[in-house]
Amino acid sequence: MIIVMKAGASPAEIKHVTRRIDELGYAAHLSEGTERTIIGVIGDERPLESATFEVMDGVEKTISILPPYKLASREWRRETTVVDVGTTKIGGQELAMMAGPCSVESRSQLLEIAHAVKEAGATMLRGGAYKPRSSPYSFQGMGVEGLEILAEAREQTGLAIVTEVMAPDKVDLVSEYADVLQIGARNMQNYALLLAVGKSSRPVLLKRGMMSTIEELLMSAEYILSAGNYNVMLCERGIRTFETYTRNTTDINAIPALKHLTHLPVIGDPSHGTGRWPLVAPVARALVAAGADGLIIEVHHDPEHALSDGAQSLKPERFAQLVRETRLIAEAVGRTV
Amino acid sequence: MIIVMKAGASPAEIKHVTRRIDELGYAAHLSEGTERTIIGVIGDERPLESATFEVMDGVEKTISILPPYKLASREWRRETTVVDVGTTKIGGQELAMMAGPCSVESRSQLLEIAHAVKEAGATMLRGGAYKPRSSPYSFQGMGVEGLEILAEAREQTGLAIVTEVMAPDKVDLVSEYADVLQIGARNMQNYALLLAVGKSSRPVLLKRGMMSTIEELLMSAEYILSAGNYNVMLCERGIRTFETYTRNTTDINAIPALKHLTHLPVIGDPSHGTGRWPLVAPVARALVAAGADGLIIEVHHDPEHALSDGAQSLKPERFAQLVRETRLIAEAVGRTV
Amino acid sequence: MIIVMKAGASPAEIKHVTRRIDELGYAAHLSEGTERTIIGVIGDERPLESATFEVMDGVEKTISILPPYKLASREWRRETTVVDVGTTKIGGQELAMMAGPCSVESRSQLLEIAHAVKEAGATMLRGGAYKPRSSPYSFQGMGVEGLEILAEAREQTGLAIVTEVMAPDKVDLVSEYADVLQIGARNMQNYALLLAVGKSSRPVLLKRGMMSTIEELLMSAEYILSAGNYNVMLCERGIRTFETYTRNTTDINAIPALKHLTHLPVIGDPSHGTGRWPLVAPVARALVAAGADGLIIEVHHDPEHALSDGAQSLKPERFAQLVRETRLIAEAVGRTV
Amino acid sequence: MIIVMKAGASPAEIKHVTRRIDELGYAAHLSEGTERTIIGVIGDERPLESATFEVMDGVEKTISILPPYKLASREWRRETTVVDVGTTKIGGQELAMMAGPCSVESRSQLLEIAHAVKEAGATMLRGGAYKPRSSPYSFQGMGVEGLEILAEAREQTGLAIVTEVMAPDKVDLVSEYADVLQIGARNMQNYALLLAVGKSSRPVLLKRGMMSTIEELLMSAEYILSAGNYNVMLCERGIRTFETYTRNTTDINAIPALKHLTHLPVIGDPSHGTGRWPLVAPVARALVAAGADGLIIEVHHDPEHALSDGAQSLKPERFAQLVRETRLIAEAVGRTV
Repeated sequence: MIIVMKAGASPAEIKHVTRRIDELGYAAHLSEGTERTIIGVIGDERPLESATFEVMDGVEKTISILPPYKLASREWRRETTVVDVGTTKIGGQELAMMAGPCSVESRSQLLEIAHAVKEAGATMLRGGAYKPRSSPYSFQGMGVEGLEILAEAREQTGLAIVTEVMAPDKVDLVSEYADVLQIGARNMQNYALLLAVGKSSRPVLLKRGMMSTIEELLMSAEYILSAGNYNVMLCERGIRTFETYTRNTTDINAIPALKHLTHLPVIGDPSHGTGRWPLVAPVARALVAAGADGLIIEVHHDPEHALSDGAQSLKPERFAQLVRETRLIAEAVGRTV
Repeated sequence: MIIVMKAGASPAEIKHVTRRIDELGYAAHLSEGTERTIIGVIGDERPLESATFEVMDGVEKTISILPPYKLASREWRRETTVVDVGTTKIGGQELAMMAGPCSVESRSQLLEIAHAVKEAGATMLRGGAYKPRSSPYSFQGMGVEGLEILAEAREQTGLAIVTEVMAPDKVDLVSEYADVLQIGARNMQNYALLLAVGKSSRPVLLKRGMMSTIEELLMSAEYILSAGNYNVMLCERGIRTFETYTRNTTDINAIPALKHLTHLPVIGDPSHGTGRWPLVAPVARALVAAGADGLIIEVHHDPEHALSDGAQSLKPERFAQLVRETRLIAEAVGRTV
Repeated sequence: MIIVMKAGASPAEIKHVTRRIDELGYAAHLSEGTERTIIGVIGDERPLESATFEVMDGVEKTISILPPYKLASREWRRETTVVDVGTTKIGGQELAMMAGPCSVESRSQLLEIAHAVKEAGATMLRGGAYKPRSSPYSFQGMGVEGLEILAEAREQTGLAIVTEVMAPDKVDLVSEYADVLQIGARNMQNYALLLAVGKSSRPVLLKRGMMSTIEELLMSAEYILSAGNYNVMLCERGIRTFETYTRNTTDINAIPALKHLTHLPVIGDPSHGTGRWPLVAPVARALVAAGADGLIIEVHHDPEHALSDGAQSLKPERFAQLVRETRLIAEAVGRTV
Repeated sequence: MIIVMKAGASPAEIKHVTRRIDELGYAAHLSEGTERTIIGVIGDERPLESATFEVMDGVEKTISILPPYKLASREWRRETTVVDVGTTKIGGQELAMMAGPCSVESRSQLLEIAHAVKEAGATMLRGGAYKPRSSPYSFQGMGVEGLEILAEAREQTGLAIVTEVMAPDKVDLVSEYADVLQIGARNMQNYALLLAVGKSSRPVLLKRGMMSTIEELLMSAEYILSAGNYNVMLCERGIRTFETYTRNTTDINAIPALKHLTHLPVIGDPSHGTGRWPLVAPVARALVAAGADGLIIEVHHDPEHALSDGAQSLKPERFAQLVRETRLIAEAVGRTV
C-alpha cells in the first residue's frame, strides 16, 4: 500500500502515519517528492484497511498495490485449472457447450430440449429449477420437481446438469441432483451462499454480477476457493451500462483480461449478454474468438410459450447452426468443439 | 402492453399475434399507423411475458405501459406509510436520524458511540453484527455477540436498533434482537432473503442495490409487501457510475422520484452515497432538502481504528454538527429533527 | 508517478526503467516490498506519459499521484474565484439565479419569459440561439436573430445574458451579444472551442459532459484558464447512468467535491439534471443545500408549445415558488438569494 | 408516438390531447385499457416534440415508435453501403485493415511505421496530425506538417490516409491531404463539425462517443448523410462503464446490432476499446467474428517513446501476428483479409 500525503503535510502528521505502520507490524518507507511525501507500507497489504490511514490528518489518499485476491490469481497458480464434470473437462483444449432452457417448465419440455441440444453438439444441459425473478408475480421455477426432471434428462442423454442454487439451505438438496451449481448474477455477492457452495464438493459456475467489476468477480471466487472448493468456473454474462438497445453489454474485454489474471476457466453467456436472440450467434462467435473456454446458451423449442427469457432463446435448429459456426471459430484459434 | 409490428408485417403475422392475445384472455386493439401497425393488449399486463410476442415473426418490439409493482405504488395507497419503530415514527413530520458504526467491534466501542449519537440527536442506532465484505479475509462481524451488545445499547440509551440480516435462516435470530431488519445493497435481489423478511413481523430497511434502478428497488419492496410485511422503508445509498472520485454517486433525483412513485418512507445514506467523510454533511443536507424522511449515518469515535468503513465515518462531534445543520434545512422544508 | 513492477521483475528490467527516468530528467526512488518493487518518479509528473513505462517489460502498472490540472486547483488558488458579470457577482455570498427558456423561439416568447423570471427573482437570463440537437430534423435555434432578441431582453430587464456558443468561428459573434458564453455538455471536450473561448474576454459557463468525470471537467476548465481566461464557472447538469426514470442523474456529490478541489464557482442545473419538471424544485433545493453557488433553470410560459425541452421547463409561477423555497434553504446554509 | 394517460385522466384532459394532435396535422387513435387510456398519434412522428404532450395535465408519458433516424436505417436502404477509398472498398467481402500510430510524431517515425504496417497487411494508414488531448499540457499534434508527412507516406506506400479533423474551419485543409476524415469520439455530437464534413466530398469515419448510445451514433451519422455526404463508416471504439481494469468497454453487441439497424459499414477499434495492448489481438479477433467490416489498430515501432497512447499500441511484429490470426477468423465467417 502507498500512502500519499497532502501537499504541505507537517512532519508530525507524517510521523503519526509511520508510527501507526510500525504498530501494525509493517515497515514504512518514505519518499519525498517535489510536491508531496509518499509513504510505502512494506509487507502483505491484504489485511490492511485503507481507511486506517485515509482518516488521518495530512493524508490525501491511499493506493493499493497488490490485487486483493490470492488463490484466484494466475500468480498463485500458473496453469489453467481444468474442472472435471463427469466425462467433460472444462478449461482444456475442447470448449464446453452448455445449453438448455432458462427454466424447467415441464417434463416433456425439458426432455425435448435436452435431446435436441445433445444432438446439436451440447456437452452439458442447463435449466433452472429455482428462478430469481424481479417480480414476485412471475413464474418462480418448479423447485424439487424440476430437479428430478433434470436428473431424468441426464440419465436419458448423458449430459451433465448445470442448475442454479439461490439459498444456502438449498445447497445440499440441489447438489443431490446437479453436476454443477450455478450462482446467479444477482447473488454474486451473497456471501452466505458463496460460503455454502465453497463447502460443497460440486463444481461451481459463478456468474459475474451485472454491476460487478472483474476484480469483484475474482474476490467472490476467492470466497469459494478459500472455503475449500477449487472447482470454480467464471461466467461473463454482460454488464449493465447506459446502452438500452441490448439488455446488457457483453464485456468482451473481460475474456482475455480474466484469462490473464486468473487460472480459472471462463465461460461466455451471449444469451444474457445480449438479451436478443438475433445477436446471440455473432456474440457467441466473438466470445470464442476472444478465448472463452466455453459457452452457455439458452435454447427453447417453443420460445413463444416459454415462461421466461423467450426473447433471448434460440430454437434448436438455430443452436445447431451456432455450434457449426462456433466450431469454425474454435479451429481458427486452435481449439475444438 | 403495446406490440409494435415491423414495417411491412404481413396480415398473417398480425393475425398470429392477435390470436395469441385472445388465447391468453386479453383483447387486442389494432391501430394502423402510416409506417407500422401497433397492437394494444387490453387487460392487466403484469402477468404477461413480453417475450411471448417478441419472438413472433413480424414483431419489432413490445412496450410495457403499467409499472410492474402494485402494492408499493402511490396509486395503490395515496397516503405515505408511517412505520412505527418503538416510539419513533418514520415517514411522518419528524425526520428519522439513524446513526452508529459500520460494524459492532466491541462492547465498549458500541456503547461509547451509542451514547454519543443519542446525545447528538440520533433517534435510532445502526451497527452491523453480520458484515457483507468483498474480501473473505476482512473482518466479517461479531455475529450473535454483536447482536447482544446492540441489545444492551438499546437498554442503556432507549435507541431502537437497525442491523443487517444476510441469510434467510438468520432472520429469526436477528429479529430477536433488532427493531429493524436491514437488507443490504448487495442483497437487494436476494429473493430468498426478501421472502424471509416478508414473513417476519419486524420493520425492514431495504437498501437500493448499487446498480439497481428505482423500478427494481420498488419490485424488491413488492416482494416483501406481497409476502405480508407492510412496514418497509426504502434507502437511497448511492449508485455505481463511471465517476471514481467518490465511492458511489448519491442519486438525489431518486428522493423526489420515490416520494412520487411510492407511499413507502425514503431514507438517505450519505455515508455510502459518497464514501468520503468530508462530503457526508453537505450531501446529508441535500437529501433532507430534496424530501428524504430520514438519514442513516456512519459514526465512529475512532475512525483510524475502525474495522470497516472508517473513511466515510464521522466522529461524534462532527455528527452533532451535522444534526444541527440538518435541523435548519428540515425547518426550511417544513419538517423537524 | 509511481511505477509498480511485476512480481519477479528482473534487475535488468528495473534498471531499464530507472535509466529511462534519468534520461527524462527525473529522479528514481526504489522501494522493495515483500512481493513487488515499486519505483517513485521524483519531479513534476504532469508532462510524463504513463505509457512510456507501462509498455516496458517487467512493469505492471503506473499510478499518478498529482491531479493533472493545476490552475483550476484549490492548491493553486485558495480563495474562491468570484466572477463579475455586469453588476452580479458569482461565487460570493449571494446565489446566482439564471433562468429562461431552453431556446429563443420568438421575440414575444423571450421578452415575456424574461420579464417573468426577472420579477420572480432571477439575476441572469438564459436562452439558446444556437441549439445542439441530437436530430438534424429538430429546431436548431434562431441564430443571430436570437442573439439580437436576447440583447433586447437585457436592455428591457437589466438581466445579463447566458447563451451557448457551438463553434470556434462563432465565438466573436456570440461575444458581441452575450455576457456569459456557455459551453454545452456535448462540447465539454471540444478542445478547439475551449481554446477559442479561452482567448475571449467573456466569462464562460462550462457544463460538465454527461459522461465526464469531475477530473475531466477540471481538465477542460484548465484548457480555458491556460489560454488566459480566468472567468470560468463550472456547471453540474447531471450525468448519464443506467437509471432510465430520469433523463440524467444529478451528481449531488460533485457539488461539495468541486468546492473542495477547485476555486471556481459551481452552478447546479436541476432542469437537465432530472429532465422532469416535477423533480426540478426539490433537486434545486438540494443543490443549494449542498453548497452550489447558483442555479440555472429552464422556464417557459407555455411548455406545451416549447420547441425544445418542454418536459423539464417550469412555468413562471412555479419558478417563483422555487425561488421562495430556495431562499429558505440558502439562509439555512448562510447564503442569500 | 403513443401517449399514455394517467389512471383516472378526465375526459377533458383526453380531449385536450386529441385536439392538439389534430392541430398539429396528425390523427388521434384512442384505446381504452382497463387501467389507462392510450392515444396513438398517426403520422410521421419524427418532427414531433414529445414534451408537447408530456407537460399536459393527465398525461403520464409518451413513447416513440419509430427510430428517429431515417437515411441511416436499413429500412431506407437494404443493401450494405460500400465506401470506395482509392482502390479499397469498405463494407464488401474484404475487411479493411487500418493501422498506424496514434500521432504523427516525425517524418521518420511515420514512414517507418507506414512501411511496416503495409508489409504486415494493412490496407489503410491511420495517424493523427491534430490530437484531442484531455490535458492542455500534452502534445497536441504536428498540424499541417503532420498532414504533409501523411501525404508523403501515401505516395511511398500507396496506403490511403485516415486522419482526424477537429474543427469545422479545418475540414477543407485536412481534406486536401486525407482520404478519409475521422470524427473523434469526443466530437461525435459536435454538430457544427458534423455538418461541415457532411458538406465535404471525402468519406468519413465516425467514431462512437464513449458516452453515446447506438441510436445517438446513428443520429450523428444522420447529420452527415442529410447534409449530402453518403460515404460514412461507423466505428465502435469502446464505451465508458464502471469497469476500471480496461480503459473502455468494447461493446461487442454493437457490431451485430449496427449491422442489423443500418446499411453503413462498421469498423472495430480494439486499441481504444481496451486501452491495453495485450488485449488488442483477442478483441480484434472477436470484432471480426461478430461481423465487423474492418479494424483500426494503433501500431508504433517504439511504444516506449510514443508521444501518446503507447500503452495500447502494438509493435509491427505483433500487428503482423494479429493480421495472420484475424485472417483465420475472417475465413471462418466467410470474409477475407
